[in-house]
Amino acid sequence: MDFATIRQLLSDLAPADEDAVAAARARDAQLTKPPGSLGKLEDVAAWLAAWQGRYPPRAEILRTIVFVGNHGVAARGVSAFPAEVTAQMVANFEAGGAAINQLCDSLGAELSVEVFDLDRPTADFTSDAAMSEAECAAAIATGMARVEAGTDLLCLGEMGIANSTSAAALATALFGGDPADWVGRGTGVDDAGLTRKCDTIAAATAFHGAALGDPLEVLRRLGGFELAAIAGAIVGARRARVPVMLDGFICCAAAAVLQRAASGGLDHCLASHRSAEAGHDRMLQVLGLTPLLDLGMRLGEGSGAALAAHVVKAAVKTHAGMATFADAGVSEG
Amino acid sequence: MDFATIRQLLSDLAPADEDAVAAARARDAQLTKPPGSLGKLEDVAAWLAAWQGRYPPRAEILRTIVFVGNHGVAARGVSAFPAEVTAQMVANFEAGGAAINQLCDSLGAELSVEVFDLDRPTADFTSDAAMSEAECAAAIATGMARVEAGTDLLCLGEMGIANSTSAAALATALFGGDPADWVGRGTGVDDAGLTRKCDTIAAATAFHGAALGDPLEVLRRLGGFELAAIAGAIVGARRARVPVMLDGFICCAAAAVLQRAASGGLDHCLASHRSAEAGHDRMLQVLGLTPLLDLGMRLGEGSGAALAAHVVKAAVKTHAGMATFADAGVSEG
Repeated sequence: MDFATIRQLLSDLAPADEDAVAAARARDAQLTKPPGSLGKLEDVAAWLAAWQGRYPPRAEILRTIVFVGNHGVAARGVSAFPAEVTAQMVANFEAGGAAINQLCDSLGAELSVEVFDLDRPTADFTSDAAMSEAECAAAIATGMARVEAGTDLLCLGEMGIANSTSAAALATALFGGDPADWVGRGTGVDDAGLTRKCDTIAAATAFHGAALGDPLEVLRRLGGFELAAIAGAIVGARRARVPVMLDGFICCAAAAVLQRAASGGLDHCLASHRSAEAGHDRMLQVLGLTPLLDLGMRLGEGSGAALAAHVVKAAVKTHAGMATFADAGVSEG
Repeated sequence: MDFATIRQLLSDLAPADEDAVAAARARDAQLTKPPGSLGKLEDVAAWLAAWQGRYPPRAEILRTIVFVGNHGVAARGVSAFPAEVTAQMVANFEAGGAAINQLCDSLGAELSVEVFDLDRPTADFTSDAAMSEAECAAAIATGMARVEAGTDLLCLGEMGIANSTSAAALATALFGGDPADWVGRGTGVDDAGLTRKCDTIAAATAFHGAALGDPLEVLRRLGGFELAAIAGAIVGARRARVPVMLDGFICCAAAAVLQRAASGGLDHCLASHRSAEAGHDRMLQVLGLTPLLDLGMRLGEGSGAALAAHVVKAAVKTHAGMATFADAGVSEG
């Protein structure tokens, strides 16, 4: 896999299945409820059909993938936690002790964790590209390969100490504005840490300069292995007709690369929630995404995605299981 | 049961269990996540402990009760559906074909439907009290009696053609303002229907006049059997240490009677969602309630409550099931 191949894939993305949408809307109009009264649940059922490319839509096989990587930029003091925590949290995921384990259990979703070699972090992107093209393309390919056909909904998450700095750098490069517009407290840095994050991003954008005009170059230079893998998983999901639930700020920053690289590249993705991380609301607006939930969460790991997937499951359950006016002998308005 | 007894109960409501809250907050601080990063999920776990009056909180036995009644005011053309639909929807609930059946299934909640004699609707409240004191008190008592001790979370819902007019009348009487501030399209009335709803409420408030100074009188004169039962269930739940999940506009209008009758009377209740019904956002603000969800739903039946209860279940699951920093050997920030 190289960038040329990825650009080729991005130029040929499958469209929505409009027949499946029409079938969903037609059944919806017959269900025993006032038209429109299930609000976004109705839209979600139609969206799922659109991107599964079939009617009826299904929400039985739900999967979450958490991609994990380490970041050279962590050495610049941009996180409230030391870089060792990435590996410790992987052990916690494996032992079932993290929030995402519990949320996937609650949802009835399968969880897998894809860990990039944590002893080989990306380069510090203030003075080098985070990844070579080969490394970045390989991480994208890994993300693509992890998508299993037949998945009804894929929730994407990440873990990696310092990756909110990488995400804010991606946003600054892709969308412009000041680093301060995109930087948040991540796992909880103080004001001095916040300033270090901004300074780090300013140094990086100055160093990479005009090379940041290309979205894949932005990903390679300022991103991370887990962020490239998320982008890859989104592309792979589109090709496998698997709808995607995005998580918060960091996941959306990786997704944003695709939207910049390919118009409509995120049409098969839903925004799960509005994170409390400072830049996320702005990012959702720029991406034109309306989140399902707004619960002040800012944990990452795919936690917002897995929580919002409960809504998708409920949407499909009502769509499939409710009686029609005719079935139930209920008078229409 | 008479109003004097109900007033007595309302003057002696149990407080929150602050020890249980402290225990929840203490464990939360040790869980493997940045402090506060699960947002409202953390608050919900503490709130559940507070009102179950125990630590740890539990979210295993979830119940939904849908109270159903008919309204004399339906004869005034205030609904998009004929009054027969109330009975037809009861049959639909019993056959498992309604949205609330599917949502309770998805949640793993028990659903019960409590139907007041549909052949004996309330009186048309534009020219009479909807209920006598004995009828209203009996409906409140029915609601109280339906609460089962040991329920971890009680979701409340309603069904009754024309009850959004009754709810808007309650809101106008309890909170003031113009009927148009509180009236919405309910199941989908057109503009003429909307005007009839406003005119009906204006006629009712003029007819009942100063008697509307007392919240229980407001409920009796402008409410309905199912609304009185919801108020009763909320009181019964407080006494049985059962936290309550409110549904949308109509359920909240019934709840509002209690908040006006007893300060803090809704402290053991969560607002599940912001309904698309026009008056609900204003009502939530007046009640000081922040809803968990905002998904454009406006169906009633307890549908918003049952959907939001998925969040409560997830909150308890993360609270109880996550590892602590010490357990997992994760470095703290």
